[in-house]
Amino acid sequence: MKFTSEVTEMGVTERGFELTVAAERVPGIIWAPEGAGGPRPLLLMGHGGSQHKRTEGILARARAMVRHHGYAVVAIDAPGHGDRVTREEGERARETRRAAAPGMTAERFREMAARNAKAIAEWKATLDAVQALDYVGTAPVGYWGVSMGTAIGVPFLAAEPRVKAAVLGLAGVHTEDFEKAARSISIPLIFMCQWNDEVAPRDASLALYDAFASQEKSMHVNPGGHLGIPAFEREQWEAFYVRHLGPAAR
Amino acid sequence: MKFTSEVTEMGVTERGFELTVAAERVPGIIWAPEGAGGPRPLLLMGHGGSQHKRTEGILARARAMVRHHGYAVVAIDAPGHGDRVTREEGERARETRRAAAPGMTAERFREMAARNAKAIAEWKATLDAVQALDYVGTAPVGYWGVSMGTAIGVPFLAAEPRVKAAVLGLAGVHTEDFEKAARSISIPLIFMCQWNDEVAPRDASLALYDAFASQEKSMHVNPGGHLGIPAFEREQWEAFYVRHLGPAAR
Repeated sequence: MKFTSEVTEMGVTERGFELTVAAERVPGIIWAPEGAGGPRPLLLMGHGGSQHKRTEGILARARAMVRHHGYAVVAIDAPGHGDRVTREEGERARETRRAAAPGMTAERFREMAARNAKAIAEWKATLDAVQALDYVGTAPVGYWGVSMGTAIGVPFLAAEPRVKAAVLGLAGVHTEDFEKAARSISIPLIFMCQWNDEVAPRDASLALYDAFASQEKSMHVNPGGHLGIPAFEREQWEAFYVRHLGPAAR
Repeated sequence: MKFTSEVTEMGVTERGFELTVAAERVPGIIWAPEGAGGPRPLLLMGHGGSQHKRTEGILARARAMVRHHGYAVVAIDAPGHGDRVTREEGERARETRRAAAPGMTAERFREMAARNAKAIAEWKATLDAVQALDYVGTAPVGYWGVSMGTAIGVPFLAAEPRVKAAVLGLAGVHTEDFEKAARSISIPLIFMCQWNDEVAPRDASLALYDAFASQEKSMHVNPGGHLGIPAFEREQWEAFYVRHLGPAAR
């Protein structure tokens, strides 16, 4: 784990880092309270498709979890996203997605499966690395990721027992493997569903909620499209994490 | 408005009262902070079928809103419920409901419409009476009611502009009039849905959520049956009311 930057703002220290996983450079950010020492709950945040580790929503939620609850928060660029591609490569990938026929092809599913396998290895390596930091340690771990953050998050959670609570959503059942992974997840969940989601079909989203084996799983449905999760949901996520992962020791 | 009892416990004063509406006695309870004076947000709480104004859940939520937020809370016995019937009459009514054929008959719908008309007049009279109290006044008003509290609440909210935010749920679309009333409601809502509700069918519940005209409407879905709303939802309701009705002045 190589640290590349450090800046402190309003009590939150943000450190850039790089990991090498399977010979590929994985850039990440870890946020923690200024001067933090000792173990504290950790939140992993997975960004959406065409976004990156420091997308506005992630930045706001990360800072809130640090300021309000003393957590550490980590985000990494997903394969083919953020600082792992040039601006031109990113533009080209977005163009390709826009130009693609609607619906999912067998080829697209294979690409997603390959991306997910890579992303899971990278999240596991990230978790290993940050748990070795004295201001993180092996305290409880949560995950937050909607849309692509759920496409990656579901197989990740199925494969990673260290994560004890998660916020997922804006995604539906799309393959048998994905549904099987969902059925193996039994940690407490909040599942976000946008009632007029133009990306994740409503029936597939309800089917994904249905599939989780968790005893505690709340689905929060709100009107509007894929990008329209209301701001007031954030405080409910915060309360959810604190209920399950505990507060940081002061 | 005739007060019939008063007791203070842990900072919460609970006063029993009676109103006469259309020549019928309507017993109620109002909870407020001990020694309260001056206007404060008011929450109306409607109980479920075969329950009463001081059902365990109502009592706990009422006390929490008073203690945590300085609100006033009022609950009344619905027509044919609580102290408006003898224990024998209540038992007989429950027996009749249990013995009834599953599904709704035209006669049952007519009975419900008559009960709702009565209940709406009683809620309006209650609101008039408690807003005349110096420790309530004309501050913002909210409503909470699931199951029968929604069967009554939807036509009540459609007819009562003083209510500015509501928690509803455990009920579905069942008549055209009911759906029309739902379509006319545009205040912020939380709508509770139990994923394995044995009383309110899932499709009818989703259709009712869909019908509300509110820009802000969150549906909270949880696994389990009609009586299984998780305890952690209460703090989300509290935050919702405070966001829309404001806190009480201290």
